[in-house]
Amino acid sequence: MNYWIWFPGDFEIYHIMKQNFSREERGFDWPAYWYTSSWNHNVQFTRTYHLTEKTSFTVFAKGKGYVAIKRYLADGSEQIKKFPYEQVITCEPGDVTVEVIVCHLEGLPSIFVSGETVFSDESWGASNYIEHNQPVGGSALFTKKEDNPMEFPYTHEIKAPTKIEVVNGGQLLDFGYDITAKTQITYSEKFEPITLCYGESRTEALDVSDCYLKHVIETPNDSGIEQISENTFVTRLRAFRYIFLPDVNHDSITITVDHQYVDFGGVSQFKSSDKRLNKIWEIADRTFRTCSDIFFLDGVKRDKWVWSGDAFQSYFINKYSFFNKEIVERTILGLRGNDPIQQHLNTIIDYSLYWMISIEEYYQTFGDRKFLEKVYPKMESLLQYCDAQIDEHGFIYGKKDDWVYIDWAEFDICGPLCAEQMLLARAYQSVIAIRQALGKSIADLNVKFKKLISNIHKFYWDEEKGGFIDSYESGKRNVTKHANIFAILFNYADEVKAAKIKHHVLLNPEINEIHTPYFKFWELEVMAKIGEFSYVIEQIKSYWGGMLDEGATTFWEYYDPNETGVDKYAMYGDKYGKSLCHAWGASPIYLIGRYLLGVHSTSPGYESFEVAPQVDLFDELSCILPVGKGQVTIEIEKRQLMVIATVSGGILCLPNQKIPLPKEQKIIIQF
Amino acid sequence: MNYWIWFPGDFEIYHIMKQNFSREERGFDWPAYWYTSSWNHNVQFTRTYHLTEKTSFTVFAKGKGYVAIKRYLADGSEQIKKFPYEQVITCEPGDVTVEVIVCHLEGLPSIFVSGETVFSDESWGASNYIEHNQPVGGSALFTKKEDNPMEFPYTHEIKAPTKIEVVNGGQLLDFGYDITAKTQITYSEKFEPITLCYGESRTEALDVSDCYLKHVIETPNDSGIEQISENTFVTRLRAFRYIFLPDVNHDSITITVDHQYVDFGGVSQFKSSDKRLNKIWEIADRTFRTCSDIFFLDGVKRDKWVWSGDAFQSYFINKYSFFNKEIVERTILGLRGNDPIQQHLNTIIDYSLYWMISIEEYYQTFGDRKFLEKVYPKMESLLQYCDAQIDEHGFIYGKKDDWVYIDWAEFDICGPLCAEQMLLARAYQSVIAIRQALGKSIADLNVKFKKLISNIHKFYWDEEKGGFIDSYESGKRNVTKHANIFAILFNYADEVKAAKIKHHVLLNPEINEIHTPYFKFWELEVMAKIGEFSYVIEQIKSYWGGMLDEGATTFWEYYDPNETGVDKYAMYGDKYGKSLCHAWGASPIYLIGRYLLGVHSTSPGYESFEVAPQVDLFDELSCILPVGKGQVTIEIEKRQLMVIATVSGGILCLPNQKIPLPKEQKIIIQF
Repeated sequence: MNYWIWFPGDFEIYHIMKQNFSREERGFDWPAYWYTSSWNHNVQFTRTYHLTEKTSFTVFAKGKGYVAIKRYLADGSEQIKKFPYEQVITCEPGDVTVEVIVCHLEGLPSIFVSGETVFSDESWGASNYIEHNQPVGGSALFTKKEDNPMEFPYTHEIKAPTKIEVVNGGQLLDFGYDITAKTQITYSEKFEPITLCYGESRTEALDVSDCYLKHVIETPNDSGIEQISENTFVTRLRAFRYIFLPDVNHDSITITVDHQYVDFGGVSQFKSSDKRLNKIWEIADRTFRTCSDIFFLDGVKRDKWVWSGDAFQSYFINKYSFFNKEIVERTILGLRGNDPIQQHLNTIIDYSLYWMISIEEYYQTFGDRKFLEKVYPKMESLLQYCDAQIDEHGFIYGKKDDWVYIDWAEFDICGPLCAEQMLLARAYQSVIAIRQALGKSIADLNVKFKKLISNIHKFYWDEEKGGFIDSYESGKRNVTKHANIFAILFNYADEVKAAKIKHHVLLNPEINEIHTPYFKFWELEVMAKIGEFSYVIEQIKSYWGGMLDEGATTFWEYYDPNETGVDKYAMYGDKYGKSLCHAWGASPIYLIGRYLLGVHSTSPGYESFEVAPQVDLFDELSCILPVGKGQVTIEIEKRQLMVIATVSGGILCLPNQKIPLPKEQKIIIQF
Repeated sequence: MNYWIWFPGDFEIYHIMKQNFSREERGFDWPAYWYTSSWNHNVQFTRTYHLTEKTSFTVFAKGKGYVAIKRYLADGSEQIKKFPYEQVITCEPGDVTVEVIVCHLEGLPSIFVSGETVFSDESWGASNYIEHNQPVGGSALFTKKEDNPMEFPYTHEIKAPTKIEVVNGGQLLDFGYDITAKTQITYSEKFEPITLCYGESRTEALDVSDCYLKHVIETPNDSGIEQISENTFVTRLRAFRYIFLPDVNHDSITITVDHQYVDFGGVSQFKSSDKRLNKIWEIADRTFRTCSDIFFLDGVKRDKWVWSGDAFQSYFINKYSFFNKEIVERTILGLRGNDPIQQHLNTIIDYSLYWMISIEEYYQTFGDRKFLEKVYPKMESLLQYCDAQIDEHGFIYGKKDDWVYIDWAEFDICGPLCAEQMLLARAYQSVIAIRQALGKSIADLNVKFKKLISNIHKFYWDEEKGGFIDSYESGKRNVTKHANIFAILFNYADEVKAAKIKHHVLLNPEINEIHTPYFKFWELEVMAKIGEFSYVIEQIKSYWGGMLDEGATTFWEYYDPNETGVDKYAMYGDKYGKSLCHAWGASPIYLIGRYLLGVHSTSPGYESFEVAPQVDLFDELSCILPVGKGQVTIEIEKRQLMVIATVSGGILCLPNQKIPLPKEQKIIIQF
């Protein structure tokens, strides 16, 4: 495919910087508070061709530089001819190397070579003058010379409010659900000052003094607006459901919004006889799409930063929603930044570890070995970066400025934390899996992994408490659910220990509950994993259903049924700090898809996969889920199960039976 | 001083990138072919104040972000208030920390805080979220809120040609000497196509098909011009003495140029009874100023890149010309880029070593300990980077992609090169000196230095050849002048060896001559150092005087009296590749100032200095040279020497006598 190319990873580094610099709060900008990798400003692209006939091509570039055509003459000498960009270059037959030199002070050096034989594609190499001949980055989104890799091709839709309410002397516009959009203000006569009060909730929008995003436009020259026609002005991009216009009680102002989003298309469908569950799926899917941009974002109103932990959960949800490969690749590359690495991802050790695990998850999901090869060096260098902070037992500890997060919870943080070691072990396994996929040696890492697992059991397992303790240094023997959840999730507890954990930790009311939906993701997964499907479905229906009862049209960052009134919108000490459209709020999609419908890949790229629906949970069901490049349809009606997949490799797993799913062949089972 | 501040080194990294991306050749841009460090895009600035009374201030910034005011309350809790930029912020008395958060996707994050008590100055700290509380960068050039650190405040002068000649059916404009300028084209009626052929020489400008810089302007929308008034168009910046306008034989087009330069002011004066020498000084000074921009450039027409080797020589010339401290600091910081370092400076090992030596030279010249403290960590990390490629004898060798340059000469490059080891030893000495100045331990480095020196003598000294050989691995025992020049210059040869070197190498016609003016710099210095003053003065008069005879109005990159006609403008395989205004062409200033007038610092910042004029060389002399913050005047007339310095610390050194130079006191000596 002929597309724009760049130094690998630079597109993602450029755009993630833009993204992480886009947060707004109460009238100011709030860049992410971590070290920000820069893309390469100076790049060389090359490709050698054996031309059998005369051919012509043209180079287009973002940046400044030239094109050099190198040819080795019969006498062994090198002939170099240089050309400016945007000029038709004709090459005679023979072996030629085409070199394109591009620098860019402010932006992303990138080129588009257009020609019949000589054109930019994945076969080109890039150098930043340190790393040579790297496989270039490129995207099917940028295939024409008019495209600009610095401007992402979003889909746009101009929307009018679905409802306008006159309230408190002003107008409250309701767009139905959270959207990310620029606000367009059109005056029928001429400009007049206006105040825009945004809200994810009605309450917030109407709270003129305290809403999180407010824009007071006093003059047509306000630096925050752009005039796009004689009487229309446009604001910056913001996420909201409502806009309140205080003191606007006439028709001379029309507000529309330019809704901007990435159209990932539709893959999954979920429909069951349980209307509440259907609604939960629908709202979760909307929530997830709204938070999926160039990268997987945490939420849309507040941070809009790309967090590795949040993104990691999104990778799982993605598999059961729109199943997009490129957003996963972009997020992986953007988060990782460039080498040499100097700080854990988002400053958080666990987030570095999740990143490593995500590479294995990526491979299992998409099976793309080429991407593995590209990202592998950065996986190894991150591993080395982590290895530099490992103690004699093999445990990773936080060095100065590192954040050992795991979750918002009261851990005994004296010494290395158990949950962190579980993640480290899991990360080792992922590196081992990737090395195996690439045919590399795993011996050294296997030794490390075994030592680590053995020491985890030796230092953290508390037989008396029936679970893993947070930390062994303090002597407090504090037990929280986190490490124990990981132990089961990652298969680090044998049956005996797992049973103890279930009894003494997971189902023990004396152990502190998981408070955050972030970690509830793993908790519910573990409950599903140990077969507590009814518990999971009930949790989904009560927790997410509870938000529906509150009128949610997207799922929230956090929900506590006991919080009422305006309190329920507060978080992080901010009256409207809570995000009401948050990626991890979409976790029912994963839980339902992965465990209740039981669809999952068992070899890279769904070459083989299982479909293990919990048929007893559903009276009627009609759903479609992605399985790699195909789809599987699962239908239940009158205690009859029908499964059909558009690709081969599937196995239908039911209690005590496994039935192959030949491609395009309906399997019907009565139960 | 209240000035704009930035993360230390970032201003220089930003501008050196701009500079190294500014080269133009035959219609295309030619960025420097090495790895290009990026500045930090995300920065936090902080300063804690103990406010005794209420005070107000305003923050201006390049970039996006906010201002946070942090205050610890009586109960120990922290109170944070956030404000947008450009808003008056009022603080009550007490201890407050002012934090300014700035990100910038395309440019340099920088701030200007304006207020009576709270204002941006050198007392602020900066963080890039990895390195915290670094002493900020700032410059006396950016002291007003309207200033923009991304735009250097050049001096501009609109110039008309000094001479217009009608030739070959067109007009040849002569501006007298090389200048860096934008060309302004004013049409008396309306736009018409025009071709601009630039030349540093008349020959080049008139060579319409082959001149190095040519601009064919076909339409008023040409992307290379900017319309600045109804009938005036301006080109990009180029360096030239001549512009030829082919086919322009009427008055409807007027060409003026917008000469852009950094006005370093005047310090030195040189006037003697030898008019040729005076002219050489004058032309050298012009050459040097023309090549001195934000950074010390190699030349102005061609590369315009900042090369560490070239800059190193400029540091020496600067001391005897305009004595500017800031350009040295900017060049040092820009060349070094940021940590972690990933490539030798300009890819050349010697250039990394010169950089380390330059820090000691800087300190000896300017005595600024604060700058030392800022740059010291980068000196150590560069040392470590070099140390990673040292063999068991302590010798530095080139790793893949490193360029072991030293000079354009035929070295025996089998194994580590002797001259490179001399530079390494000299670099060790510089790090030792700087560590001593900063009160740090030198023990480890002393050991390394001694081992290295001892091995240099053991492996490279050839008693029979009476000199140091290039390399010991091949067995060829090849002798070139380079290592031997360094041995004397750096005092690594004792008297016996030095005498042998002088006889068997330096004055031996069988040893290849030094061809490049770059290394001739060191060769002439060595000849001066060993007392061959007449040789030096004669060389200056013949080599540089030879260029004057060729009509030079600035000094060239290279001069060979045997080259005639158009051939003398060729270099690097390009018909007009030679730079006719090249920084190292100004070396007579250094040779005269340092050796013939004998002025030099003997302790940091010229706290003590020597004045050792070679009185017998001059019939009459009247000159002023900088000595740190003061100046020394040296006059000779009728065998009478008068010396007076505006600062104390000087010693007048004459054969067999040393006379203190008390401040502002004339010393008169008959000889």
